Amino acid sequence: MDQLSMKKQAAQAALKYVKADTIVGVGSGSTVNCFIDALGSMKGQIKGAVAASKESERRLRELGIDVFDANEVSGLDVYIDGADEITPQGYMIKGGGAALTREKIVSSLAKKFICIVDKSKQVDVLGSTFALPVEVIPMARSYVARQLVALGGSPEYREGVVTDNGNIILDVYNFKIIEPLKMEHTINNIAGVVTNGIFAQRFANVTIVGTPEGAKIIE
Amino acid sequence: MDQLSMKKQAAQAALKYVKADTIVGVGSGSTVNCFIDALGSMKGQIKGAVAASKESERRLRELGIDVFDANEVSGLDVYIDGADEITPQGYMIKGGGAALTREKIVSSLAKKFICIVDKSKQVDVLGSTFALPVEVIPMARSYVARQLVALGGSPEYREGVVTDNGNIILDVYNFKIIEPLKMEHTINNIAGVVTNGIFAQRFANVTIVGTPEGAKIIE
Repeated sequence: MDQLSMKKQAAQAALKYVKADTIVGVGSGSTVNCFIDALGSMKGQIKGAVAASKESERRLRELGIDVFDANEVSGLDVYIDGADEITPQGYMIKGGGAALTREKIVSSLAKKFICIVDKSKQVDVLGSTFALPVEVIPMARSYVARQLVALGGSPEYREGVVTDNGNIILDVYNFKIIEPLKMEHTINNIAGVVTNGIFAQRFANVTIVGTPEGAKIIE
Repeated sequence: MDQLSMKKQAAQAALKYVKADTIVGVGSGSTVNCFIDALGSMKGQIKGAVAASKESERRLRELGIDVFDANEVSGLDVYIDGADEITPQGYMIKGGGAALTREKIVSSLAKKFICIVDKSKQVDVLGSTFALPVEVIPMARSYVARQLVALGGSPEYREGVVTDNGNIILDVYNFKIIEPLKMEHTINNIAGVVTNGIFAQRFANVTIVGTPEGAKIIE
């Protein structure tokens, strides 16, 4: 079974977590695009969505689903998004698409984070296969890079990328993250860091993995 | 003695912490403007400055002092800035002028933070006289405000203010900060917060207070 079919499988299985008459939090990326397509079948039943990227917003609107601003809602029942890496505990690295800040904000509005991935994203230790993205105020780029080196990583400037918030991304390579929550907080407390791609404070409550044997749900 | 004279006194006394052949970190605000004027007398002796605001940058250049970008320097010997409140331990609230993010970045580059204030800024507990500024990504305004309420504060949106980074400011009123370092970290870990005005991780190593009896130095 190819990767896209596994993504579609996970996306389809996530629909059962979407309750009628609620506003759904929707992330961004290729697996989420499969979820948005699947959500079209429920469009008459839900109130609408809050989207973590302009691309997701556009796709939701195309299907006729209302999109609300994060400031308009007081909370969300579920947030559905992919991940670049996820551990058995539901800790994630996200931000390959540079939308980590918006994804962290929208997911924080939700009671439950439902993570949909294909099995290639499962790891035992964060940082095993993917670099950790950190969004940084441009004038702090050198300072933050030095602090990340002091923490044991190898930061690289993501050339040519400016986030929706006008900031830059440092990708931290060779960085095994043994204590995700502690490291998330440590990096947040470096002056000039806007967000980092560790999702441990806001971990996944449910992981749905697309596998050749069908969608596997880890709660 | 009027407030301006006390500020000038503190500013003048700070000069002795500036070493020859170094690059000096310079904050922003009315007391810092007095310091910049005083620094003019040393302009041939220092290499230049890194400034925490465009206004400070302009004033430094007017005096013929070279201004470097924060990314060009690997560290600073001292950073000199004012504060909106300061405790006997050197913990501060800053950000009345909305420059808190840049101030936190530049001050973090320095080995020592020299805080220059008039005596009206001295408090025993942070939050006694001044609201705590928090810089927030616009889409997270409502969410962050709810979290700040949960922490015991009364956040108010600073109308019409957009920071240099394109963000908004929430001023948190009625917020006595008993454990500054812990609260600084707690607020940093709210999704959507860019910086908060508690300077505890980067506290003042030296406080110079302008008083009617002369500049008082607390090391």
